[in-house]
Amino acid sequence: MSRKRVRYIWIPLLIAVIVVPAGFLYVDWNKSGSGAGLYSRQWLPDALFAYWNPDDFYQSVDTVSGVFEGKQCVSCHEGVTPGIVRDWKASHHSNPGNGKPAVYCSACHGDDHQALHLPTPDICGRCHVTQHVQFEDEKRFGFPSHALAMERAMDAKHFVDKPKAEVTACLQCHSVASKCDSCHTRHRFSAAEARRPEACITCHSGPPHPDDETYFTSAHGRLYLAENRQWDWSKPLRKGNYKGPTCAYCHMSNGKHQVADKSIWKFGIKQTNPLTSGNKVKREQWVELCSDCHEADWSRQQLAGLDAERKKAWKKLYRAEAVLKDLRAKDQLYPAAGERPAYPVDWLDSVRPRARIGFFEGQASAFYNVSPIERDYFEMWYFDNLGAYKGAAHGDQAAVSRGHAAMDSDLAGIEQEAKRLRSLAGQEGQEQYQRPDPSTLWLFGDYTEFNKGHN
Amino acid sequence: MSRKRVRYIWIPLLIAVIVVPAGFLYVDWNKSGSGAGLYSRQWLPDALFAYWNPDDFYQSVDTVSGVFEGKQCVSCHEGVTPGIVRDWKASHHSNPGNGKPAVYCSACHGDDHQALHLPTPDICGRCHVTQHVQFEDEKRFGFPSHALAMERAMDAKHFVDKPKAEVTACLQCHSVASKCDSCHTRHRFSAAEARRPEACITCHSGPPHPDDETYFTSAHGRLYLAENRQWDWSKPLRKGNYKGPTCAYCHMSNGKHQVADKSIWKFGIKQTNPLTSGNKVKREQWVELCSDCHEADWSRQQLAGLDAERKKAWKKLYRAEAVLKDLRAKDQLYPAAGERPAYPVDWLDSVRPRARIGFFEGQASAFYNVSPIERDYFEMWYFDNLGAYKGAAHGDQAAVSRGHAAMDSDLAGIEQEAKRLRSLAGQEGQEQYQRPDPSTLWLFGDYTEFNKGHN
Amino acid sequence: MSRKRVRYIWIPLLIAVIVVPAGFLYVDWNKSGSGAGLYSRQWLPDALFAYWNPDDFYQSVDTVSGVFEGKQCVSCHEGVTPGIVRDWKASHHSNPGNGKPAVYCSACHGDDHQALHLPTPDICGRCHVTQHVQFEDEKRFGFPSHALAMERAMDAKHFVDKPKAEVTACLQCHSVASKCDSCHTRHRFSAAEARRPEACITCHSGPPHPDDETYFTSAHGRLYLAENRQWDWSKPLRKGNYKGPTCAYCHMSNGKHQVADKSIWKFGIKQTNPLTSGNKVKREQWVELCSDCHEADWSRQQLAGLDAERKKAWKKLYRAEAVLKDLRAKDQLYPAAGERPAYPVDWLDSVRPRARIGFFEGQASAFYNVSPIERDYFEMWYFDNLGAYKGAAHGDQAAVSRGHAAMDSDLAGIEQEAKRLRSLAGQEGQEQYQRPDPSTLWLFGDYTEFNKGHN
Repeated sequence: MSRKRVRYIWIPLLIAVIVVPAGFLYVDWNKSGSGAGLYSRQWLPDALFAYWNPDDFYQSVDTVSGVFEGKQCVSCHEGVTPGIVRDWKASHHSNPGNGKPAVYCSACHGDDHQALHLPTPDICGRCHVTQHVQFEDEKRFGFPSHALAMERAMDAKHFVDKPKAEVTACLQCHSVASKCDSCHTRHRFSAAEARRPEACITCHSGPPHPDDETYFTSAHGRLYLAENRQWDWSKPLRKGNYKGPTCAYCHMSNGKHQVADKSIWKFGIKQTNPLTSGNKVKREQWVELCSDCHEADWSRQQLAGLDAERKKAWKKLYRAEAVLKDLRAKDQLYPAAGERPAYPVDWLDSVRPRARIGFFEGQASAFYNVSPIERDYFEMWYFDNLGAYKGAAHGDQAAVSRGHAAMDSDLAGIEQEAKRLRSLAGQEGQEQYQRPDPSTLWLFGDYTEFNKGHN
Repeated sequence: MSRKRVRYIWIPLLIAVIVVPAGFLYVDWNKSGSGAGLYSRQWLPDALFAYWNPDDFYQSVDTVSGVFEGKQCVSCHEGVTPGIVRDWKASHHSNPGNGKPAVYCSACHGDDHQALHLPTPDICGRCHVTQHVQFEDEKRFGFPSHALAMERAMDAKHFVDKPKAEVTACLQCHSVASKCDSCHTRHRFSAAEARRPEACITCHSGPPHPDDETYFTSAHGRLYLAENRQWDWSKPLRKGNYKGPTCAYCHMSNGKHQVADKSIWKFGIKQTNPLTSGNKVKREQWVELCSDCHEADWSRQQLAGLDAERKKAWKKLYRAEAVLKDLRAKDQLYPAAGERPAYPVDWLDSVRPRARIGFFEGQASAFYNVSPIERDYFEMWYFDNLGAYKGAAHGDQAAVSRGHAAMDSDLAGIEQEAKRLRSLAGQEGQEQYQRPDPSTLWLFGDYTEFNKGHN
Repeated sequence: MSRKRVRYIWIPLLIAVIVVPAGFLYVDWNKSGSGAGLYSRQWLPDALFAYWNPDDFYQSVDTVSGVFEGKQCVSCHEGVTPGIVRDWKASHHSNPGNGKPAVYCSACHGDDHQALHLPTPDICGRCHVTQHVQFEDEKRFGFPSHALAMERAMDAKHFVDKPKAEVTACLQCHSVASKCDSCHTRHRFSAAEARRPEACITCHSGPPHPDDETYFTSAHGRLYLAENRQWDWSKPLRKGNYKGPTCAYCHMSNGKHQVADKSIWKFGIKQTNPLTSGNKVKREQWVELCSDCHEADWSRQQLAGLDAERKKAWKKLYRAEAVLKDLRAKDQLYPAAGERPAYPVDWLDSVRPRARIGFFEGQASAFYNVSPIERDYFEMWYFDNLGAYKGAAHGDQAAVSRGHAAMDSDLAGIEQEAKRLRSLAGQEGQEQYQRPDPSTLWLFGDYTEFNKGHN
């Protein structure tokens, strides 16, 4: 390297010294808005948000004043909210045994009635250290995971555009990151309850994650339905303790509060190589788990079946994606990127509009403000593909059939529509009335620039 | 007033004296047909109707003759229908305690085996006075209510046109007005059973009233599914007795057999001002109920969320209705009112046919015999709107999302179709082949004049 | 008959002597392929098939060697698969009582660990003679029946064309013919479990057989949901033992392991005369069964309601079939039989292609490789018709409404599409762009000649 060149090394250095802190400052400034997360300057919280994200938004509105001891809480609340007190009395908190003192209301909510708080995982983690450490450990594995569910729900660009009512709906489940009573309902907080599938399916149901539907339709789920009354739910989730598996038996075996490390195909929205060395290790963990009841060979065949299903699904998805990318390259998407509301929270898009196709280019754009053919691809990818995946993973074979039949249908529809768009592009000007109306579903209504100004 | 004018007062008086009794006579004559209710001259009951509407149609077909005492009934039926006897023996009727005599079969069914009857609420009400009075009291609040469910099912115009098989289907649930065993199944008639959500969802499920689906998908419903086995169902529906709420806990709190007086948004088919003084009183009753377990502030926020959802829904529905009314005004509906079967049971319609749009102009017309765009509006209003409503009311946020996405889609489709109808109206004569075939779904098949002649 | 003619009788005789054995040889040769059944030369089994059809494909892959006694199995497997051992210990096999010896693992699986087998009904039938004889007796009644479920899944022509993943899905349920643990889950094999509806709905759910959905939505199903916890499932399925009926109570009353002989309308895919003398006998068996709880008259009315519903459904189906047959006769189906993949496993079809319409001409063709209008008819017939049927049979009246509304809609769509096809046939050549793309759903993807080469 010549001396002359070395002399100019201060240029990139100086830029870095200026730009990197500026970036941090920008992110920091962004986060200082009324909302929470990276886009908190773009929206205001609704009053209801306080209950799903108490750390950021909860303010005690109580009119009772005074500082109370736990026993006083109980004595008064026996009249005000007897159900809650009854649950607490039946809980381990009330009777910890071994001469330990009871855990009263004030231990979690505080003792100043004007400044009560809703307990967060940090508060529960003061005593339940193992579980809390395991839960926090999920963050190493990224999303999907319980511990990151809240940040992601708040920090996705498309949430800025969404109507509040729907954001609230999302928050209700994603709040699993902010509070332990998503699974251990208050105020008994029983492990026995959280071991049941019902604890999970409050959130894990419906498209795009029909865990509820596929589990309960599987032989495992039917066994649960028929026999769970005879099972002793006080027992840990360990080999030999349960006749059939539940969500937690497989995904939280031995009670581990970290569900992210064993997942191979994860949420199912991008393709995975199931046979990397890392995934082979995970696979053996699954085979070992299945072997609590099944032959190891049986388990391997089932997992191979899942791989085969996934491979087939992605072949179809890539084919659809290629059709869309070809249309974009030839400027045949209608309406095109510049003819519809801009990509959410992206000033570059207002300068040079660009259709974002598929997962890697921008998940947010796939939901709304897209042309009909892009929306069709989104539904193929997000609903039908994921339905087939969960069917294959949970043993609901009918869901596999339904999902793949739907993907076949989606693909045929996408190819048909692409043909029509190409034909229209060639005839521009003559048969205008056949142009689809751009004010169709996904460009219209609650998911456009209208909301951005009102969120 | 001049003397001259006063002199002619006898004219309206005379008209009233003639017309009013004539109207009563006409209604009375109408009711004297083979069916039941206001349109009873227009249809014949099916044999099966007897079991759903015993007061009007049941005739004992038994071949056993004789008059029997209760103990004789039991002794013989122990062989004929042992399950029923076993249920009765386990019931409060069989063992009323406190030295009271048992209530035998004959008390409700009569003792003449050739003239047995099926018990109606009046018969049960002889002993269960409070419940019966509360039940009958619902009639003050109109429909929807259990006590009026039967009259309305029989007295709607469109039932005259409906195929019998479907009327029977309707009757099965609407018979809740005619017999208490819709909720208290025979012959145990246990209050513990009727307190469970299963007692309600036999009828309250599916569109247009997915109470079943939205409750069981909510956190409340999941809690019920996971834990109801540990609940003591013999306890009344009162604060502190149940860990989670059920249908009856909220809608029939303290066992009140009158569910109509606390409803604000009711069935959800017309818009309501939720903040009238009357509705504010009802709202405070709800907040008080929710406060059995939740903070009052939490409850108010949830109810405000429901109001916001409803407001958004009605904005969409009114917009769709405006599109339809504009088409009607310009005579662009296809097929138009005169080109399709007449509005049911309405001779005026055969003289001057008129499309009836929306709830206030005539609910009956919205179901069948309408043009495709009107049917689309009906489905938007009756299925998607009501699905979103029940989702918001019962805490199934995913149903809110689904319902509103569907309404967005419906609205886009209605606007697209309206555009097409307008364009076709302008081109009349040249591109006839593009006209939709009038023999489409809602003008065809079982819901036309064909049935009227055969019902 | 002249002497001359008699002389030539040896001609047909000779042909028969050659052709009949040749036919048997051909079938025999066909069956000798890698698969199972009549088309076993056309496909290869997947590894997973072994578990659903063990008789044909299972090979023990175990690495443990040695010959063991039952007690040794238990002692070792208490560590390896404790859940299974725990189930066995709680089973009747482990504690048969009356001084009988326990039935150990080896009795069913063999004792040579290198050559273990999965038990088939024949093995269970060694002891459970009555049940096995009843089960085998189903074969007299043809399909649908449990005992023939496997042969039919393997021996249908369209299975040759199907992707393996879907054949596996089918096998999972149809394996009920090959192994008893479809209903009596291993290793407790309890009769109490198999009496519950959950034992049946593992398979009997979803289109085309929504038995699950229609039962649980009926009043019977709701009763089960609310009260089954109080029922004593150790009792036989006999009058007076259960408050409400379950699948098995009605279809396997008194525990009879033969469900095929009492069925009148069977699967619902072809019309039946419900009032033949044979069917009248079956009907009285049903009325007797219903009379365990209901009036005989009530039961007869309900069955008459089912007949009426079926008659109405078939009127619609025949009308749709007539439209399709007319199109075929005029060569207006598009794509026509010769323009699409050939009928599966039919060399005649490659010589003289022919569209097969409706049940009697060839069920296999109705699934895939058909033109859109034929597929619409298939869905009308196989999904909507069967949904209405099961609704009527199981007391879910809302399913009747939904099914018939869907059939009305299907029929309107088929007539509309037929009109379009006729119009296109007349204009051939001028408006080609309006021709539907033949690469639509049912001609495309996994269900064509592509798979045939790879199965």
